[in-house]
Amino acid sequence: MSEKGKLIVISGPSGAGKSTVVFKAMEGRDDLCFSTSVTTRKPRPGEVDGREYFFVDLDRFAEMIKNDELLEHAVYVANSYGTPRKYVEDKLDSGMNVLLDIEVQGARQVAEKKPDAVKIFIIPPSLEELERRLVGRGTDTARAIEARLIRARQEYREADFYDYIIINDDADRAAEELKAIILAEHCRAADRAHYLRDL
Amino acid sequence: MSEKGKLIVISGPSGAGKSTVVFKAMEGRDDLCFSTSVTTRKPRPGEVDGREYFFVDLDRFAEMIKNDELLEHAVYVANSYGTPRKYVEDKLDSGMNVLLDIEVQGARQVAEKKPDAVKIFIIPPSLEELERRLVGRGTDTARAIEARLIRARQEYREADFYDYIIINDDADRAAEELKAIILAEHCRAADRAHYLRDL
Repeated sequence: MSEKGKLIVISGPSGAGKSTVVFKAMEGRDDLCFSTSVTTRKPRPGEVDGREYFFVDLDRFAEMIKNDELLEHAVYVANSYGTPRKYVEDKLDSGMNVLLDIEVQGARQVAEKKPDAVKIFIIPPSLEELERRLVGRGTDTARAIEARLIRARQEYREADFYDYIIINDDADRAAEELKAIILAEHCRAADRAHYLRDL
Repeated sequence: MSEKGKLIVISGPSGAGKSTVVFKAMEGRDDLCFSTSVTTRKPRPGEVDGREYFFVDLDRFAEMIKNDELLEHAVYVANSYGTPRKYVEDKLDSGMNVLLDIEVQGARQVAEKKPDAVKIFIIPPSLEELERRLVGRGTDTARAIEARLIRARQEYREADFYDYIIINDDADRAAEELKAIILAEHCRAADRAHYLRDL
């Protein structure tokens, strides 16, 4: 069966362990990949166009928005980032499951353009544990951590928007849940009913 | 996390290999069980009330229907069979995932009373393969096989009613899909959102 891939939108607070869970789920699989974002940021030494990012200038980025070539876009620290529609659609058509790690606002934009995207919210087992992890990383000031916790609380209010919630109390278990969700989504009757009509 | 179990309704043509798939999925797990049906059929030698079936007389069965004590019921070869609501609900409350192997009509009755039941349709890879399997079993006459194939075609028209379709071309793979569906359904945001509200 050559099936189309699934678009998997993943959100969750910084410190929830999203990357760990996703990379564990990707181990030994060639049907799962991350999307590559478009950005107006200048490439850093060693970065390759089309690998870390698709690097474009502001005019081209504006044109992409105008032509509906982006599934979502946002500005961080004066640079714009976006998800290229055609790149994602080509991957999906080739049977790849494409993962997007984006914030709630971006997820809402994607869902509008791709209503069949699977929306997953990954959270830490508790806000206390989230704080412990953020402190443990040692990369944020106390004030930045406070801001991240406030933001997490805000994001939690939007959890209803997601199809699934994965509680990352154990990364292996969470990765199993992510893999199960992707496999189950491929079994959806809406996707497979054509199989019966063809008989 | 002590979660409620899921009610899993499984249908599919005779010869699709439903039992094989389900028993493979149950291997080594104590969170998955079949429901025990109520029947008006007389116990056969060796059958134990509450194990193979709950054996009741016609009056009690009629009373169960009247009191809405059955999630579904049907008549086969002059005997009545049904799924006892309280038995199933107690299992679900204890965290067990309860499987019902029932026909499309029964599945529709269950879905009406339990809208959150997960409905799975298991089919063979093709009708030719179904015919091969039915012939191979050697338990049906050519005419009975013909009837089963016609029935399968009719059931296929109702596949849209199900949430998931599992194509049993390989029983191990099909069992993986069944397990993934059950795990994914436990990750549904609707079931886990309370977890975020409690924070």
